[in-house]
Amino acid sequence: MAARIGIGLVGCGVVGEALARMLLEQRAEIAARTGLEFELRHVVVRDPAKRRGVQLPGGVVGPDTAAMLADRDVRIVVELMGGTDRAREMVLSALSSGKDVVTANKALLAVHGREVFAAARAAGRCVAFEAAVAGGIPLIESVRRGLIGNDIEAAYGILNGTCNYILTRMLDNNASYAHALAEAQRLGYAEADPTLDVDGTDSAHKLTILASIAMRRSCELARVRVSGIAGIELIDLASGRELGYVCKLLATARQYEDGLDLTVEPTFVPKEHPLAAVAGPFNAVSVYGSAAGHTFYYGRGAGGAPTASAVLSDMIEVASGNAGRVFAQLAVLPDQTPPPAYRPAGETVARHYLRIGLADRPGGIGRIASTLGAEGISIATITQHEPPRNGGVHVVPVIVTTHPVKRCAVDRAIRSMTAVDGVVSRPVCIPVFSDPGGGAG
Amino acid sequence: MAARIGIGLVGCGVVGEALARMLLEQRAEIAARTGLEFELRHVVVRDPAKRRGVQLPGGVVGPDTAAMLADRDVRIVVELMGGTDRAREMVLSALSSGKDVVTANKALLAVHGREVFAAARAAGRCVAFEAAVAGGIPLIESVRRGLIGNDIEAAYGILNGTCNYILTRMLDNNASYAHALAEAQRLGYAEADPTLDVDGTDSAHKLTILASIAMRRSCELARVRVSGIAGIELIDLASGRELGYVCKLLATARQYEDGLDLTVEPTFVPKEHPLAAVAGPFNAVSVYGSAAGHTFYYGRGAGGAPTASAVLSDMIEVASGNAGRVFAQLAVLPDQTPPPAYRPAGETVARHYLRIGLADRPGGIGRIASTLGAEGISIATITQHEPPRNGGVHVVPVIVTTHPVKRCAVDRAIRSMTAVDGVVSRPVCIPVFSDPGGGAG
Repeated sequence: MAARIGIGLVGCGVVGEALARMLLEQRAEIAARTGLEFELRHVVVRDPAKRRGVQLPGGVVGPDTAAMLADRDVRIVVELMGGTDRAREMVLSALSSGKDVVTANKALLAVHGREVFAAARAAGRCVAFEAAVAGGIPLIESVRRGLIGNDIEAAYGILNGTCNYILTRMLDNNASYAHALAEAQRLGYAEADPTLDVDGTDSAHKLTILASIAMRRSCELARVRVSGIAGIELIDLASGRELGYVCKLLATARQYEDGLDLTVEPTFVPKEHPLAAVAGPFNAVSVYGSAAGHTFYYGRGAGGAPTASAVLSDMIEVASGNAGRVFAQLAVLPDQTPPPAYRPAGETVARHYLRIGLADRPGGIGRIASTLGAEGISIATITQHEPPRNGGVHVVPVIVTTHPVKRCAVDRAIRSMTAVDGVVSRPVCIPVFSDPGGGAG
Repeated sequence: MAARIGIGLVGCGVVGEALARMLLEQRAEIAARTGLEFELRHVVVRDPAKRRGVQLPGGVVGPDTAAMLADRDVRIVVELMGGTDRAREMVLSALSSGKDVVTANKALLAVHGREVFAAARAAGRCVAFEAAVAGGIPLIESVRRGLIGNDIEAAYGILNGTCNYILTRMLDNNASYAHALAEAQRLGYAEADPTLDVDGTDSAHKLTILASIAMRRSCELARVRVSGIAGIELIDLASGRELGYVCKLLATARQYEDGLDLTVEPTFVPKEHPLAAVAGPFNAVSVYGSAAGHTFYYGRGAGGAPTASAVLSDMIEVASGNAGRVFAQLAVLPDQTPPPAYRPAGETVARHYLRIGLADRPGGIGRIASTLGAEGISIATITQHEPPRNGGVHVVPVIVTTHPVKRCAVDRAIRSMTAVDGVVSRPVCIPVFSDPGGGAG
């Protein structure tokens, strides 16, 4: 006989519908496979009258959480409403009402994670959140449990499918950022308001959660240095390709001797690295552990069914008691771990790509080289193609790659360069990913 | 206060040493992180006098298992001895003595898995085996728990690092199979006797375990169709590269409407697929699930520290009770699942690569094309480079790729072709991987 587990679902958008469909259509299979029978007892939505893509059982849909919280047969509340403030309130209420919580809400956990985890601990409940980072990829449990014997040196993620889709399509179609974004919106890979995706905020949310678990330190969203892809130019993607690089919005958590670096920014990944091959709306994460060495995880980071797949695996782990044990026993969540020492900004050493718009007059290259030299930056490659010949003063892009150098030196050189005769605009700078190697090579 | 867990380790080779080192050197860290203090109470080895790369505590090393099995403080026996018969006996004894078992032994589980799992169930104990497939990659638990809400349509693995290293180096260095194998042996990527690696047996062991869990069917090692890489020729790897393919020893479990196909064989992977980029001694697995779609896992499939990383994660899951619950509750192990229906051999439809050695005389290409046509095989590409001009009768390789066609038709055409005038040897055939797409695309 399968144990019956009452479920309250809050939020029924794309993921909620996919989850409800799985719970309703695969109830018997799931019970046979797991010994657990999930019973969808409440579906809380803003507009109960709205037509949905799934036929929900009569009487379960309602506009507020009171009935769900009062229902003692609801053991697990699944939070798929998104956002921070209302979700925080709802999750805290669910925990204090004795429910375990499964959530896919990265913003909630990035902003209020410590409070939410502490509240769960105080209530003797747990919070599971496999779906909050990298959607359908079983990443969180792989890092939290699978790599528990490792010190994690670094984690690098492509954590936002919208950005990755845009960057991929720009190159594939020789398209501008604006064109690729419009296409992504048309195909449902980008929201009508894509701000939180393209400005890097969504990646920063996920990085905060991932880094906290991987590094076993209570990481602060506010300490992530973030720059997004808005306004990235095709010429840089194409020039990078010529150099053997693929541009990704990379979310980086890397432990150095003098502290942890958390960064989200467009980064050139050498084409041999598995991250470089991640195309379109996919997500992927590289984790470098002291014992396992380099491990890499890839899959769909968003979408109804993939995210619901992760939510359902959490529900099964919660219902079987495993999630609760892991939550109670492993001291890896940010309400139990100390804050990291953060590395000062600018200390990271890497190769850098620079594109400098130069008026086509004698001496420009020399002045650029001198400016870089003054900051101790040594040039690895330099490329200037012949400008179009149609008279007038031309601006030619000069592409420089540097040998490994501290970011602060590059930033200083860029500031100086804007004052250099012939440099017509602020140079574009994209760092190049460097493989940390990892314990086992 | 950390709970103290007594450990008996059987076998202390590369992996055992790495594990012992982790347990001894990171004891306090592991305890702080997990609430578990692992105490290495017995290390059973054939030759206790042998010098080892790790300083073991006094009195723990011994030549037989009796003391370990009699020690009531040993809760977990870690089996790293390898092989099948003696390992089976030892594991069954450990289980009947009330110990849980953690093993990295794929041969044991592929051959005696059903018996071992049933014995554990009868004894109220569990067997954990994350390290048995794909070494340091947390693959087993990702498939077993992370994707539990999915029907798995297919799993494709590069599961043998020795073979992958050889195939990678042949192309990189323009080297013969024999040269690349010798290099792999010199660098420790291949054993002195590499038979079980290069003939595909090791991959078949791992595929049997992986397929059983992914498909939730009790798969038989004997039903895996296996061909290895011994004797593979550089010309085929190079010709494949020209066509956009990378040759991998691919272990395939794919569910078709008329049954399950289990195959280990050299396969051309289109270079856009993540499996194609897996180079050197790495392992990787692509899993296509009904909800999660395509997920992909990559890392080190062998070696001391990576394998020990997986063993240690199992030990923590066992000690915390999670592994036992999963073992008891999830009906996914081959002692509890029915056997699959197997697809008849030869029914698989794929593109195929053929290399036909043809004497350089008129009409050869026509005869090849007719032979293929007689089996209903339609040619996608055909390439014959000009032979070297130094007189005499030359043999020229003709490279054909077919449109998708059943393997049995290709096999028939190959048999016919050996009798065709001008065909000087049995044609080489390598199937081309076709992406199943997966539920979520």
